Amino acid sequence: MARVVVDVMLKPEILDPQGQAVLTALPRLGVAGIVGVRQGKRFELEVDGEADADALARIEQLAASLLANPVIEDYVVRVEPAPAAQPR
Amino acid sequence: MARVVVDVMLKPEILDPQGQAVLTALPRLGVAGIVGVRQGKRFELEVDGEADADALARIEQLAASLLANPVIEDYVVRVEPAPAAQPR
Amino acid sequence: MARVVVDVMLKPEILDPQGQAVLTALPRLGVAGIVGVRQGKRFELEVDGEADADALARIEQLAASLLANPVIEDYVVRVEPAPAAQPR
Amino acid sequence: MARVVVDVMLKPEILDPQGQAVLTALPRLGVAGIVGVRQGKRFELEVDGEADADALARIEQLAASLLANPVIEDYVVRVEPAPAAQPR
Repeated sequence: MARVVVDVMLKPEILDPQGQAVLTALPRLGVAGIVGVRQGKRFELEVDGEADADALARIEQLAASLLANPVIEDYVVRVEPAPAAQPR
Repeated sequence: MARVVVDVMLKPEILDPQGQAVLTALPRLGVAGIVGVRQGKRFELEVDGEADADALARIEQLAASLLANPVIEDYVVRVEPAPAAQPR
Repeated sequence: MARVVVDVMLKPEILDPQGQAVLTALPRLGVAGIVGVRQGKRFELEVDGEADADALARIEQLAASLLANPVIEDYVVRVEPAPAAQPR
Repeated sequence: MARVVVDVMLKPEILDPQGQAVLTALPRLGVAGIVGVRQGKRFELEVDGEADADALARIEQLAASLLANPVIEDYVVRVEPAPAAQPR
């Protein structure tokens, strides 16, 4: 069992009103020193078996069709490192 | 300038209909081997200066109040490693 | 062809950080007189045929399983009135 | 006190992967007769006082800057009819 993460963000040149709302709210909350906020989507996929090249190719294709709209969004597919064996 | 990422996911015990929709759609798309999908939010924050302990404490507080609802969501705050110097 | 709309909002007793971010941002934008903001989801479904009782019952069930999480969200299913015949 | 609703949907010509995921999942759930699904955002704003022309003009401006990205999204601002007086 492996976990693959797909991060989806609006392309940098596309205005992100939700991130903008958070950024605009910061002074009122007394939070200084943050000069940009962007909000995107994060998908966590549980893969049955190993996250090998085949699995990643399938997820890459899935990301381009069902998780993101590549015309307006960028996405990154990556394997999440397995958590260490000890309990947390 | 540093980038801090806040990942927000519904707590594992809370049903996530959007992730469920993607999971249910997979067989129709011929995608096998994925047994779980969860959809959450990803925030990218640009910090003016270093992402030191102070900055992270402020962002931690922000995450708990304006980025996530801790009653139903888990969140993780982490510093994004700076991209390598060479162009991509 | 008929259009059915499903509105999904977090239950009133559940904190909505995204709506809160917009509300907190308002003074900075000089927008007065708004005392509450909630953000939810809106689904527009195109029904092949009439939106009769059968179709609405199916959509009601769909809303409860794939569009909303009834533990934390309320939803409303309603038929959108057809647009008037003249061009707009 | 009045309620104003702002519906935000991706423009029709822009692919909506989240709506597409729901649409693709339907056959697996045995739901027939739905030929299109689009997912957008719904904002509910509580206005202190009446939702008069002034208030609506402010909300219109807010929608265009902080609730929607007009380059990729359409939005509609409308006053929600007050609920009937009887208890539900």
